[in-house]
Amino acid sequence: MPRLLHFASGCSEGLTPLTAFDNALREAGIDNLNLLKVSSIVPKGARFGPRPDLPVGTLVPTVYTHVVSNLPGEVISAVIAAGVGADGGVLMEYHHKGPADDAQRVAQAMVEEGFARRGWKLEGVHFASSEHKVDRLGSAVAAVLLLDSEEVTP
Amino acid sequence: MPRLLHFASGCSEGLTPLTAFDNALREAGIDNLNLLKVSSIVPKGARFGPRPDLPVGTLVPTVYTHVVSNLPGEVISAVIAAGVGADGGVLMEYHHKGPADDAQRVAQAMVEEGFARRGWKLEGVHFASSEHKVDRLGSAVAAVLLLDSEEVTP
Amino acid sequence: MPRLLHFASGCSEGLTPLTAFDNALREAGIDNLNLLKVSSIVPKGARFGPRPDLPVGTLVPTVYTHVVSNLPGEVISAVIAAGVGADGGVLMEYHHKGPADDAQRVAQAMVEEGFARRGWKLEGVHFASSEHKVDRLGSAVAAVLLLDSEEVTP
Repeated sequence: MPRLLHFASGCSEGLTPLTAFDNALREAGIDNLNLLKVSSIVPKGARFGPRPDLPVGTLVPTVYTHVVSNLPGEVISAVIAAGVGADGGVLMEYHHKGPADDAQRVAQAMVEEGFARRGWKLEGVHFASSEHKVDRLGSAVAAVLLLDSEEVTP
Repeated sequence: MPRLLHFASGCSEGLTPLTAFDNALREAGIDNLNLLKVSSIVPKGARFGPRPDLPVGTLVPTVYTHVVSNLPGEVISAVIAAGVGADGGVLMEYHHKGPADDAQRVAQAMVEEGFARRGWKLEGVHFASSEHKVDRLGSAVAAVLLLDSEEVTP
Repeated sequence: MPRLLHFASGCSEGLTPLTAFDNALREAGIDNLNLLKVSSIVPKGARFGPRPDLPVGTLVPTVYTHVVSNLPGEVISAVIAAGVGADGGVLMEYHHKGPADDAQRVAQAMVEEGFARRGWKLEGVHFASSEHKVDRLGSAVAAVLLLDSEEVTP
């Protein structure tokens, strides 16, 4: 049961789609972890915090989304919206070829629908958000790491 | 090593593809978990059982598949077939834009091929199966959760 | 934290895309495991070794990639390149409809970019690599399993 959420986002250029993604993860500070993709619930009582210092290769359940483009000048963005309330919360991801504020609006609307459907009261929305204007081949990534509190060295 | 398998399926409408999927997970009773997508083996000796009461945000390895459509009137379906025998079993997933009984036939044939290839004797096939007729934007989901027996409170 | 890496690769025909993939996993010796897809870091100090004897259905974090084709005579390949150094390493995956040696060159170049970006010194590159000439419907898979050392029975 994860108890600590860390938000991360970054963008970068690269020589290939995969290395552009890897470089964007590096800008986000999470390139040296093994990400396990999960869908997308905030545990009840979880708190938000800074990135703990994890050894290279640590397995970390992570909600993430990314976008890649090789169209020079194109704006790309990736967003995770985290809605939180007393009962828990939901994480909704959206990426597109367009600005981050539009992506945030889409993701926030999805959070609101998720809360309404569950009959939960929405107390706040937090974003991991990244926007990039492509030079040659670029990527934007947004992520929320689901960590155990014990992994944090105070 | 998971020891308990729980079958779940559901379908729903939503305002976006992601929230339609989230709503279908809710109908399946598994919307408040963090699903880790896995491929797709039934451990030897695993048993099937009802959904245990898991806290919001629990990480659960899950075999799942889903389909989304925004064509009003279209029938969509998602199926997991679980073939079981003395040596273990295989889980095969299939989704399409068509009825669930057709999807079940495809998934069952894949289970039979998987058993034949392994030289295992197939003793039975179970399905998680969902079918939905789209109103505006709908999703159907089928899932098999791979749980520890200890997670079940008797 | 995984400490042992096992390389696996295989290819096969099948009656459907999913069973061709399953059969290719069987040729790779990893068809009876539940693979959790991860991205893609070699822990510092990890070593490489043979496949331990794991029970049917064991959950194993795995970096994998695969390709499917139903064009008779087409050559398909799937490759994971593992770059290693004193600080850790990176795993880069590539699959395409073409020969494995081309895929290895692409994957190696991505490893080199990943090391350069991190400021790490590359000491060696290892490959999991698979190539297949399609008969009717074929799949090629490459995988690196991330295991605990304790899972190995000496």
